[in-house]
Amino acid sequence: MSFATYEYKERIRKTKERMMQKGIDVLLITDPANINYLSGYDGWSFYVHQMLVLIIDEDQPMWIGREMDANAAKVTTWLYRENIIPYPDDYIHSDIKHPMDFIAGILTEIGQDNRSIGVEMENYYFTAKSYEQLKKGLPNAKFQDATLLVNWVRLIKSDAEIEYMKRAAVIAERAMMAGIELIQEGVRECDVAAKIFHTQITGTKEFGGDYPAIVPLLPSGEKTSTPHLTWTDDRYKDGDAVIIELAGCYKRYHSPLARTVQIGKPNKDMKTLSEVAVEGINACLEMIRPGIACEEIEETWRKTIEKSGFVKESRLGYSMGLNYPPDWGEHTVSIRKGDKTILQPNMTFHLIPGLWLEHYGFEVSESIRITESGCETFAKMPRNLVLKEFV
Amino acid sequence: MSFATYEYKERIRKTKERMMQKGIDVLLITDPANINYLSGYDGWSFYVHQMLVLIIDEDQPMWIGREMDANAAKVTTWLYRENIIPYPDDYIHSDIKHPMDFIAGILTEIGQDNRSIGVEMENYYFTAKSYEQLKKGLPNAKFQDATLLVNWVRLIKSDAEIEYMKRAAVIAERAMMAGIELIQEGVRECDVAAKIFHTQITGTKEFGGDYPAIVPLLPSGEKTSTPHLTWTDDRYKDGDAVIIELAGCYKRYHSPLARTVQIGKPNKDMKTLSEVAVEGINACLEMIRPGIACEEIEETWRKTIEKSGFVKESRLGYSMGLNYPPDWGEHTVSIRKGDKTILQPNMTFHLIPGLWLEHYGFEVSESIRITESGCETFAKMPRNLVLKEFV
Repeated sequence: MSFATYEYKERIRKTKERMMQKGIDVLLITDPANINYLSGYDGWSFYVHQMLVLIIDEDQPMWIGREMDANAAKVTTWLYRENIIPYPDDYIHSDIKHPMDFIAGILTEIGQDNRSIGVEMENYYFTAKSYEQLKKGLPNAKFQDATLLVNWVRLIKSDAEIEYMKRAAVIAERAMMAGIELIQEGVRECDVAAKIFHTQITGTKEFGGDYPAIVPLLPSGEKTSTPHLTWTDDRYKDGDAVIIELAGCYKRYHSPLARTVQIGKPNKDMKTLSEVAVEGINACLEMIRPGIACEEIEETWRKTIEKSGFVKESRLGYSMGLNYPPDWGEHTVSIRKGDKTILQPNMTFHLIPGLWLEHYGFEVSESIRITESGCETFAKMPRNLVLKEFV
Repeated sequence: MSFATYEYKERIRKTKERMMQKGIDVLLITDPANINYLSGYDGWSFYVHQMLVLIIDEDQPMWIGREMDANAAKVTTWLYRENIIPYPDDYIHSDIKHPMDFIAGILTEIGQDNRSIGVEMENYYFTAKSYEQLKKGLPNAKFQDATLLVNWVRLIKSDAEIEYMKRAAVIAERAMMAGIELIQEGVRECDVAAKIFHTQITGTKEFGGDYPAIVPLLPSGEKTSTPHLTWTDDRYKDGDAVIIELAGCYKRYHSPLARTVQIGKPNKDMKTLSEVAVEGINACLEMIRPGIACEEIEETWRKTIEKSGFVKESRLGYSMGLNYPPDWGEHTVSIRKGDKTILQPNMTFHLIPGLWLEHYGFEVSESIRITESGCETFAKMPRNLVLKEFV
């Protein structure tokens, strides 16, 4: 287990508080990060249906999952053996049986079938079909949307969580340096990606790395006009810019980091773009402190870059920490116009002022923690366009 | 693009044939593998809503996705520019707007709102909320479950796809060898994982690797009793067994492979278990050929291992090929009792007879292609328990 049992119990207590406020008796948790957060469960088994069932008047949640994963629940969670409930393998990828039928059966068996049940309607691991099957199997239940209920509990990190994110940042710095070091004309994109992966997973002498929820993103050349391309086996050319967006990950906790590298001389446009973005992020890092609203950060950014004639339509950042593929974002707070969340100490964000224009783009990002009086970046690296000139 | 345009067009034709059979006018495709299969679209953007809309009486599908990803669609697909439709960024992780509202708007605008619309009800990337929003936004549409419709088209691979899977297998073999070589007493699990990752991504001199849909699975010691644990930074001990399950990936096509490694002397139980499993998989590989039903493979396996008193409750394998996280399986055909799918040439399966007992387990697997007269394994490696004895 990654945390002491009392920390898990405290998380359960806070979750139940929110359930109470919403009148939810039974919370069905399908987001693997939320499952991990409350139980410790860890394993790449989220590609089949699994669930944590938290009942308002029970001490411990129940884990329900595939039979072959029950031993993983025994190894990684703080739950009693009797709260680990496997379903048979013929529920897997079947067109006649669905795991939610099994789960509905269990809930009925333990007398929870006519209660107010919260489900994570907007989650990768709660499909449209899952909801349909649950409704069929539990006709007397009252369903409520509990999307992000646990995610909101995750918003403010404990000191132990911050410590994990600091370790993740050490790994992120190393992975970024490894990538930057290798990039040059004639090198294949996949070899840079491989080096980054190696550094992410091997970690440091003192602690190893976990897999980040997103693979390294490595658009280059004209492909820097869009952020989510990965890599090819093409070779870099003189004049290419390369965006590196990656995260370090330690025990499922992330510290994302982005930098942009220029092979050879940057053209004037790229130089300008990078300077504007760095000025923008620096202005934000100076003003971020507890008590202000998220949207004020975006306002500072917008006013800084609009002096140079730039506009960014996409959001400037988001809350993050613990996660599983396909995303390291928590999907709660966004740093953008209209988000009035008030910053508090130990909130953690990925501040990512990327600018993607029609034919090129620039990214620089920092993972930050709100401190008592301001903010601090998890990683410590220069933010400017990284020049790789070979003369 | 990974394939010639005519191959994409042929895939579209086959998909439309199935739409016709089911009376579907408009197919909303949210599975990133299906999106890639029909359009070529590739990028780690599936963590936000995106969709391919295939209309029965239109030549080309439309891509609808996040604004910043539209340039990725321009770079990676064969679609006309006007068929790439971005939605604004304020739809992202918002509690007031949902991308499906935008999509419903587009469908209404182009007069598709009162047709028969197929949706992938059981897919990671089509949430319960997505379906609710679509139903609200398109009250006159008739919705049909089109889960796996495109996946079934993917079942029989083209020669070009088989070529990609062969390359993936070369990478898988190398990654497996790299892992096996490094494993020994005192080595950290994360360092083995890092080495495997590096080999998966760097690929060969001739071609680079893509990221597999699942990270290396590396349970060791007592944790071999369950298949989906990843790694820690613990050091291997004398007597540990280590399961390595990984895939090579080339342009999103996978060749998974599993082996089990023994550090030091295996105990008698492990030796027996491994011999039974290898005998079982060998018996299957000998009998697999076009014309037989999938369940017959499982029967051969079952009868072979039950002679030694073993039983396996979980399925023996599944169809696979093109995919994205969180799974490389296609979710169509399973090799298990009751699956009467008749084998045909160029079907491809991951045959994975893992046996996970209460305190230890053994895995050996092969990715196979059905040939004209039998089957062939993509990788060529001995199947026995790999002994790492240091005397």
